[in-house]
Amino acid sequence: MIDFQSILTSINKAASKEKDRGKIADYIPELAKIDLENFGIHLIDTQQNTYSAGNSDEKFSIQSISKVLSLSMALGLIGEKLWERVDVEPSGDPFNHLSLLELENGIPRNPLINPGAIVIADILVSQLEHPKEEFLAFVQNIANDDTIAYDVDVAKSEKRTGFRNFAAANLLKSYGNLNNDVDVVLDFYFHQCSLSMSCAQLTNTFYMFMNHGKCRRNNTFLTTTQVKRINAIMLTCGFYDEAGEFAFEVGLPGKSGVGGGIVAFLPNKFCVATWSPGLNPKGNSKLGMLALEKLTTETELSIF
Amino acid sequence: MIDFQSILTSINKAASKEKDRGKIADYIPELAKIDLENFGIHLIDTQQNTYSAGNSDEKFSIQSISKVLSLSMALGLIGEKLWERVDVEPSGDPFNHLSLLELENGIPRNPLINPGAIVIADILVSQLEHPKEEFLAFVQNIANDDTIAYDVDVAKSEKRTGFRNFAAANLLKSYGNLNNDVDVVLDFYFHQCSLSMSCAQLTNTFYMFMNHGKCRRNNTFLTTTQVKRINAIMLTCGFYDEAGEFAFEVGLPGKSGVGGGIVAFLPNKFCVATWSPGLNPKGNSKLGMLALEKLTTETELSIF
Amino acid sequence: MIDFQSILTSINKAASKEKDRGKIADYIPELAKIDLENFGIHLIDTQQNTYSAGNSDEKFSIQSISKVLSLSMALGLIGEKLWERVDVEPSGDPFNHLSLLELENGIPRNPLINPGAIVIADILVSQLEHPKEEFLAFVQNIANDDTIAYDVDVAKSEKRTGFRNFAAANLLKSYGNLNNDVDVVLDFYFHQCSLSMSCAQLTNTFYMFMNHGKCRRNNTFLTTTQVKRINAIMLTCGFYDEAGEFAFEVGLPGKSGVGGGIVAFLPNKFCVATWSPGLNPKGNSKLGMLALEKLTTETELSIF
Amino acid sequence: MIDFQSILTSINKAASKEKDRGKIADYIPELAKIDLENFGIHLIDTQQNTYSAGNSDEKFSIQSISKVLSLSMALGLIGEKLWERVDVEPSGDPFNHLSLLELENGIPRNPLINPGAIVIADILVSQLEHPKEEFLAFVQNIANDDTIAYDVDVAKSEKRTGFRNFAAANLLKSYGNLNNDVDVVLDFYFHQCSLSMSCAQLTNTFYMFMNHGKCRRNNTFLTTTQVKRINAIMLTCGFYDEAGEFAFEVGLPGKSGVGGGIVAFLPNKFCVATWSPGLNPKGNSKLGMLALEKLTTETELSIF
Repeated sequence: MIDFQSILTSINKAASKEKDRGKIADYIPELAKIDLENFGIHLIDTQQNTYSAGNSDEKFSIQSISKVLSLSMALGLIGEKLWERVDVEPSGDPFNHLSLLELENGIPRNPLINPGAIVIADILVSQLEHPKEEFLAFVQNIANDDTIAYDVDVAKSEKRTGFRNFAAANLLKSYGNLNNDVDVVLDFYFHQCSLSMSCAQLTNTFYMFMNHGKCRRNNTFLTTTQVKRINAIMLTCGFYDEAGEFAFEVGLPGKSGVGGGIVAFLPNKFCVATWSPGLNPKGNSKLGMLALEKLTTETELSIF
Repeated sequence: MIDFQSILTSINKAASKEKDRGKIADYIPELAKIDLENFGIHLIDTQQNTYSAGNSDEKFSIQSISKVLSLSMALGLIGEKLWERVDVEPSGDPFNHLSLLELENGIPRNPLINPGAIVIADILVSQLEHPKEEFLAFVQNIANDDTIAYDVDVAKSEKRTGFRNFAAANLLKSYGNLNNDVDVVLDFYFHQCSLSMSCAQLTNTFYMFMNHGKCRRNNTFLTTTQVKRINAIMLTCGFYDEAGEFAFEVGLPGKSGVGGGIVAFLPNKFCVATWSPGLNPKGNSKLGMLALEKLTTETELSIF
Repeated sequence: MIDFQSILTSINKAASKEKDRGKIADYIPELAKIDLENFGIHLIDTQQNTYSAGNSDEKFSIQSISKVLSLSMALGLIGEKLWERVDVEPSGDPFNHLSLLELENGIPRNPLINPGAIVIADILVSQLEHPKEEFLAFVQNIANDDTIAYDVDVAKSEKRTGFRNFAAANLLKSYGNLNNDVDVVLDFYFHQCSLSMSCAQLTNTFYMFMNHGKCRRNNTFLTTTQVKRINAIMLTCGFYDEAGEFAFEVGLPGKSGVGGGIVAFLPNKFCVATWSPGLNPKGNSKLGMLALEKLTTETELSIF
Repeated sequence: MIDFQSILTSINKAASKEKDRGKIADYIPELAKIDLENFGIHLIDTQQNTYSAGNSDEKFSIQSISKVLSLSMALGLIGEKLWERVDVEPSGDPFNHLSLLELENGIPRNPLINPGAIVIADILVSQLEHPKEEFLAFVQNIANDDTIAYDVDVAKSEKRTGFRNFAAANLLKSYGNLNNDVDVVLDFYFHQCSLSMSCAQLTNTFYMFMNHGKCRRNNTFLTTTQVKRINAIMLTCGFYDEAGEFAFEVGLPGKSGVGGGIVAFLPNKFCVATWSPGLNPKGNSKLGMLALEKLTTETELSIF
């Protein structure tokens, strides 16, 4: 029997001593205000036992982690035809994403890079009457937690400075892979990314991905095949240009965000979330990566 | 309890009826002679029960599948410093590999694309006194089968026509990432790729990757961490530009070769190999991919 | 003494018989309405003798040809420091321009590709109090013709559909190489490109580039060095991905536009403009290219 | 009347005082031995008056300048069908050439980048019975100077270290754009590049390019159209990734080599060669570029 609590406690202790904590993302002004000293970790197992250490209840901006949730909702709404508009291959691109978009005629490489997630946002805007409200309700429902909310200041901050996302959306539009107005799609997208959650809430939300599509209350949102596919995409594409490195060092499917959050899980075993706002040069939480590597090395648990 | 034999029988039956069997790789003249009608499948579980259907005992050229074996031997010999000369990220490159090599100053993206495997070959040539003999002995030892051999005609055939590999090796040399002579390294590399095995032999050889580094006779060749890493690389990089698609559809780590072989496995459960020489447009065995997708869909077994 | 009139007449006759006239640019809806049968040519020499054939007085949208004029005005206003924000190398890019922009950190390759021209537009918007009015006055002044005007319908049409330009402008903004609002800069840019001129008016406008910076009335707008530089850029970058081909076949500096216009000149000798709305696959006027090749081959006049 | 001699004297004086003289190409060991202090300049006009300053009679390795000569010989031998195997567009590639070769299926962008020149070498190897002897005779004939010779030590030095050229040749071979053995073609190519000339000999050799194809003895080697084309290629592609900059600053067609030589000319006026072995970061002679810029600025002579 693995003593998760003592491992988490030890991870938190190591993290508190770490001097090189990475660099906070400053391109979204609202995120630049966060204190670099934060660190939290929370784990839930299949029996719904929970373990935690550090600031595991403090909320932060989940940013790109939300892309897994919008993808799940869109897949539930329109099914497999979603894959006509976005591919499932790792991007493998060390410097940018727009050039690949041009090379491949407007079909984003996968739904977890920004252009792919913008296409998913476009699908939700087309499918939903009140996209922002209905997406939030979907997330609250999965997590069984109606305190989850958007951080409107973060959304506004990104709207003012997200020129690269405006570029991507316009490029998609020029290829005919965006059906709604650029401004409408990006307003939804910036809200989606601004979702604010704690580590504990993240594990509650992602519980269903380690549990064959069933969330904590046992209701089902995705089929086993859909979960397999989304998990495969997380493993191969969930960590920007460091997806290979994460699979290699940690060996779990998961997703990171520039807010410093990471969520990862071992199917049928546990789901874990970490938060530390300092990022490594590839844009993933520096201490979060170290924490998860330590967790899988010490427990010898991974999908491999 | 899963009835593997009936599933394999049914997969073989479906394969025999398939009309569109893909296209045989014709850039290696020796491979172009193989009969497109071939199909074989073999599975071994952790109790070493075996199941098979079709031409599962016919030998074929394992080609790129050998890259996992050379990587394993090199990792055993020089350990983690191997990663200074080759990265672990998916290549994500739809059209070529040499341009990435240039962009990244001679460090191949991963050890399973050709330039990466050529660097691994260079390491073995440096480390071993009799590289070809010792590598073959290593493979025979893992598989516990000393009938495994090189197909020298295939090696010669590739030597005469493998201009792209000569280009890659010279480019690596120009970046200082090849210590031995191009001709010497490629002679080893072409022999390594010419290894000839049946589906049954392939599962015997790859048994250790699903079994934490222990082969069938229970002797250990790799640590748990090394196996985790090699398996992660197979999952993210094992299927050329279709790695994401394979993870998405099949959900198992594995490796394919242009000879039409595929080997894949579920850690702690089973290892399976298929052979059908017709390839899909991305260079992976067409019927092999379908067979493995059917296997994981029907059994609902995958790493996710 | 060269008989320009008979050469132009013969070129026009050949053009009228041509069956494969290329394809009209349909991505700007207003341009798609033009009749493919149009062909005009007009030539002015240093003594201001003029020669013409076909529809040489019919106005058309000069589109990218205007980029030479905005560059000239900007160079006059801020001088050599303009080159800190845009380079002078051919783009050499067969498939797109945005990827190069990313590779080179937001510095467009030259001022005649769209991202480069958008940076120039940004400079004019910063420098001028009433950018659209003052730029139009500058052009009228060079040409000594105050009937030259914007085609507001074309400008509006492009504003509604120019998503790729919106993408480029936002990408420039993300790199800090656009000081004004994207919408303001592109409103100016779309007007600039919508300038409407006949072949005759085009040669009057570009007279100064073959005449060391002096326009027809002998007033000077650019120094000899500035003219040398702008002419060099026209030669190496004036014909999209066909700049090498144009230098090779025609051997004159010049500039083309998707409206089907081309203007070219031999310093100290003549300036010539052609118009035929059908484009070749590289986006240059098909009959215009043929006409100019015929002109330089028959006269044996080129810069080489 | 321009006083060329006093301009050349003043250029030489300025060069002798220059402290930052660039960096000698060290990737060819033989070239690394040259003294950085060297500077020479030589000019010949259409009346065959000559002017010179500095070490204008010292021989150096002309390297890539030879590509114009092999192109001229090949064009004379097989005519326009040469362009089926090599394009005429600037490469515009800031980091490499091999990736473009892959993107464009083995057709080099132009005959002055290495892969293009290797294709030209392949043509000469196919067309000539004794390629090295006959090419040398062709050059001696153009220059009317049978003292011109290969520097065999330089050729050998490059053969030992030219891995990037071996990579390019093998890649061309893999695309079917190389008919002879890689080793045979590169042996010719390395000799061609090792041609040794002084500034004076270079201007004698390139005299015909400023004189409509007629060399100093008035015999004709190329038609006016062929000269126009080769000159156009020199202007758009003659200076690696700095072709635009050279046209912009100097405004003459020409060609540079990593040995530190540059030859350039104004059709019907003069031909000039400079030599200074220190290169700027783009691989062109630093003092040579400055000298030619000064020459065209002071004389106000350029093709524009």
